[in-house]
Amino acid sequence: MKRINLLLICCLVCQLFFAIDAQAQMRRQIVSPEVHKDRTVTFRYNAPEATKAELSAQFLKENLPMTKDENGVWSVTTPPVAPDLYPYNFIIDQVTVNDPNNVLIFPNEKFKGSLVDVHGDTPPIYAVQDVPHGKISYRFYTSKTLNDTRPLVVYTPPGYDPNDKSKSYPVLYLIHGATDTHETWFKVGRVNFILDNLIAQGKAEPMIIVIPYANPRMTYTGKNIEGSPVDFTDELIKEVIPYTEKNYRVRTDADSRAIAGFSRGGSQTLNAGLGHPELFHYICPMAPAVNAQRVDESFKNGTYASVDVLKSNLKLLWLGCGTEDFLYEGAVGFAAKMDDLGVPYEKKYTPGGHTWMNCRIYLYEIAQKLFK
Amino acid sequence: MKRINLLLICCLVCQLFFAIDAQAQMRRQIVSPEVHKDRTVTFRYNAPEATKAELSAQFLKENLPMTKDENGVWSVTTPPVAPDLYPYNFIIDQVTVNDPNNVLIFPNEKFKGSLVDVHGDTPPIYAVQDVPHGKISYRFYTSKTLNDTRPLVVYTPPGYDPNDKSKSYPVLYLIHGATDTHETWFKVGRVNFILDNLIAQGKAEPMIIVIPYANPRMTYTGKNIEGSPVDFTDELIKEVIPYTEKNYRVRTDADSRAIAGFSRGGSQTLNAGLGHPELFHYICPMAPAVNAQRVDESFKNGTYASVDVLKSNLKLLWLGCGTEDFLYEGAVGFAAKMDDLGVPYEKKYTPGGHTWMNCRIYLYEIAQKLFK
Repeated sequence: MKRINLLLICCLVCQLFFAIDAQAQMRRQIVSPEVHKDRTVTFRYNAPEATKAELSAQFLKENLPMTKDENGVWSVTTPPVAPDLYPYNFIIDQVTVNDPNNVLIFPNEKFKGSLVDVHGDTPPIYAVQDVPHGKISYRFYTSKTLNDTRPLVVYTPPGYDPNDKSKSYPVLYLIHGATDTHETWFKVGRVNFILDNLIAQGKAEPMIIVIPYANPRMTYTGKNIEGSPVDFTDELIKEVIPYTEKNYRVRTDADSRAIAGFSRGGSQTLNAGLGHPELFHYICPMAPAVNAQRVDESFKNGTYASVDVLKSNLKLLWLGCGTEDFLYEGAVGFAAKMDDLGVPYEKKYTPGGHTWMNCRIYLYEIAQKLFK
Repeated sequence: MKRINLLLICCLVCQLFFAIDAQAQMRRQIVSPEVHKDRTVTFRYNAPEATKAELSAQFLKENLPMTKDENGVWSVTTPPVAPDLYPYNFIIDQVTVNDPNNVLIFPNEKFKGSLVDVHGDTPPIYAVQDVPHGKISYRFYTSKTLNDTRPLVVYTPPGYDPNDKSKSYPVLYLIHGATDTHETWFKVGRVNFILDNLIAQGKAEPMIIVIPYANPRMTYTGKNIEGSPVDFTDELIKEVIPYTEKNYRVRTDADSRAIAGFSRGGSQTLNAGLGHPELFHYICPMAPAVNAQRVDESFKNGTYASVDVLKSNLKLLWLGCGTEDFLYEGAVGFAAKMDDLGVPYEKKYTPGGHTWMNCRIYLYEIAQKLFK
């Protein structure tokens, strides 16, 4: 009896080393995604009962049907994919799910995507290289403005020393898009590796990057905050910036302060940035939710400072957008308005749509222009 | 035409403020989980095509069937739930999925769970309170042992100042379970809030907690490392500890060094801790994958140091396990062996199984015993 017990325990312990439960063990056999040398990718998903399965991925124009094998595992192998880090999902009988066999998750309030990293012959801008690495920190601060404990993700560059009084750093406030979270610029944007690489190459100034959770209507644990404001500018100026300046060795002049953001975060960037040129001299909207009419309104109602003040203060107004982005026309309208008003700006239109592949390119671009 | 275009753009921009795409918009209407005042919880999942849906949750003895409404949304309301933070999933036509409407995700190599936080009348040990908050940092180091860039999650207590030469801190190396990742003690274990609260109450010594990724056979991005060792002790001693001592103001005597871990991490804790009493004087396995026979073998083959050395060195050997844990019998066997050998230890057996609800209790317990 004792021997059987021992055997049983050994068995259980052995199992532990391979998987916690039988279900996990079944899934364990499945490798997904499997990136092949020719940059084709095989995706697999275990769903014996499903009647239909598709792959949805940001490198595909349309979803790819998957086929089921005798064990109930659906799979599909894609054509060769251009190197990049792409979000994807499975759609199983019309239900969108992420890939349970993939540890790389897309942080988002509503959408649970996975990420596949397709490498080419040269390391991408976001590659994990053997260079000095900065630090990503999750901080929590008490916001009186929102009456909530709020999260911040902060990048400090390699060698950052909070007590070296001989050094202080410029700071970029970097805002995510609608339904993204404070984690998205880290986990999908790869902000730390992009900056580590640029700093190692001497192409970017060592800077501190502060990524707030820019949805003032929700706690970071996903609960609605009743009656909270929609606008993020107040939270940024009254809470995030003071917290940053109290806790990090940052310079506090507007020449050392930048703001950038994607999508809804792009319009938050414009509201806070163009509205407060006394605070920000570098303003970088990426595929912002804006258009010409809104620019007019924002100048009229005082959300943006006057054209003259902007002209005499800004060091950089930088606009990025994908030519296939559904907000491209709005971005072009914004640019035309700046032309009309004579506000200097730079722009970069890239191929592709409203994607984080483009976000990483924009971050890579602006990081080389800031604070110079 | 221009007006139509403007309208269209406005429309698109408005949409952006609510959701990026129609699918997300549909999901947006769904609130899940919804914790009611009486601690019943309603879970919802949109799957019009599914024929069967169930809720699997760690507060349930068996799965609860969900019912579909006329819009294809499945839901179920549970009986009142004892306050805690629980992992859960949906099982849709036998496919396990997490909750797309819940931002709280369980980080794991294989299993994509969600978390529901059911509060009672008093704040739980892991509550986000208005106390000084420590910092969680994601660090990346180059491991020669594994020939890989490895992640570390590090907790530094409130007021930690890397340059205050008058202060140094004890350090706890905290290991996750099989298939968990370096993120699980943070996101599920809530290590930072548990410590913040204990430190604010004066119940725990301010300490640094280092959480490595303890699966030496996988990169943190989920790729297998060919030919890597199974044992984690080498990586811990040759890489993690030196990195910590180089980058943090930690004390380097064994009286100021603790190791603790859950499940597979519990046996890694015993291997590294009992094997190196010259390094660790506090050793805290939690539901470890161990048993009496293995203890014998480990003493025999030199994995553990001699009983005499352990007896004269250890400050604390602390064992935690759930009485319904499938590893409970092994833990009891381990304890009996320590009794036989005369190695002093403390133990805490809690109700419940192999769960992170228990892990949080164990962390709360040991944090009050370490370095005193």
